[in-house]
Amino acid sequence: MAIPKPAAERLSQLARLLEQSTRPDKPVSSTELEQLTGWSSHTIRKDISALESNADFSTTAGYTPAALAAAIREKLGYTDEESKCCIVGLGQLGTAFLDYPAFRGSPYTLCAGFDSNVNRIEILKAPFPLFPAYRMKEQIPRLGITFAILCVPGEQAQSTADKLVECGIRGIVNFTTSILTLPAGVEVENVSLVDALGLLAARLAIHTVKSNPTRSEK
Amino acid sequence: MAIPKPAAERLSQLARLLEQSTRPDKPVSSTELEQLTGWSSHTIRKDISALESNADFSTTAGYTPAALAAAIREKLGYTDEESKCCIVGLGQLGTAFLDYPAFRGSPYTLCAGFDSNVNRIEILKAPFPLFPAYRMKEQIPRLGITFAILCVPGEQAQSTADKLVECGIRGIVNFTTSILTLPAGVEVENVSLVDALGLLAARLAIHTVKSNPTRSEK
Repeated sequence: MAIPKPAAERLSQLARLLEQSTRPDKPVSSTELEQLTGWSSHTIRKDISALESNADFSTTAGYTPAALAAAIREKLGYTDEESKCCIVGLGQLGTAFLDYPAFRGSPYTLCAGFDSNVNRIEILKAPFPLFPAYRMKEQIPRLGITFAILCVPGEQAQSTADKLVECGIRGIVNFTTSILTLPAGVEVENVSLVDALGLLAARLAIHTVKSNPTRSEK
Repeated sequence: MAIPKPAAERLSQLARLLEQSTRPDKPVSSTELEQLTGWSSHTIRKDISALESNADFSTTAGYTPAALAAAIREKLGYTDEESKCCIVGLGQLGTAFLDYPAFRGSPYTLCAGFDSNVNRIEILKAPFPLFPAYRMKEQIPRLGITFAILCVPGEQAQSTADKLVECGIRGIVNFTTSILTLPAGVEVENVSLVDALGLLAARLAIHTVKSNPTRSEK
């Protein structure tokens, strides 16, 4: 049976967290996973049961991190195959990702950067080649790049995304403040500092209501 | 009835998207909301029904963006009250947020930055004061700062988060690659480029399986 999309997304994130465990063979309870992820232990147990896996990741003391992570990867059809990424827009934010430490040990490799400002490209230093934006159409297919990290100014976001789709990009991590419209088969993940703050505020509001139940009666 | 946390988080994000609508009074269908958000229209309809609101946001042609956003804000207990934020760690990434355009028009105000490197603070320019890290304990309560955007190197993440909690911070947007352990009542939202890529990869894998059903039978 197919796993519902939100569950697949949570499991994907959970696998990554489990793989960072310093004690990959020490069982963890769903309550501990709740603390780690912020999702309810009920949700976590339900997601894990959706794996319908015969793998031996469950003990009376909880789930074994390494085995559970492997079972998730298998079910979600992940391979260890490297996925190639590029950064598009080398302003302050894009430049900050040129030497992003989290890529090490992940299946993602940054292998190109693009910016419309040729002078800027000449000044910047990166462990991979940087190109003027007009060379995207030639370099993205040539390098086999699947994912783009979009860091251009908001007003250029949609037109740049359209170009990336033409170049064969399948997924865009959108750091701009614009909402993108993309054709079927191309996925976007919006990363927004303001959204992140909104999620925090929502959770804190929920907690406040929970701890003062009379407030919600008004 | 309380709204489940994942639904509250989706609704919070939906409200922000709706408020960006260029035509706030033109009804949108749940299918259009599916395209906008990436969540299934079924999930969206379920989340909205959990609002149990008497507000008039629903028409035969769909939901009215402005009215639905207002109903969400009311149910989640949002106020228009300003929340004050600080950036902690002014390396490449932290510096990129010093002039982050999305804060304009949001209920969040950046009002301080902190870094352990005093020389760096003297060089940087920001529209609000920057302080050496040792002054967090004095400045965070004084300025009434609730949220911190954590951009320090991974190995300093937990110790810095502990200090922020001591200073009264209630929510942390964690841009580091470390997983934080925080006391009850303090919330964290992890923002990770690698996680974002993982979510894209998971969605694309799901789509592939969907369009090639025989692959999942193996």
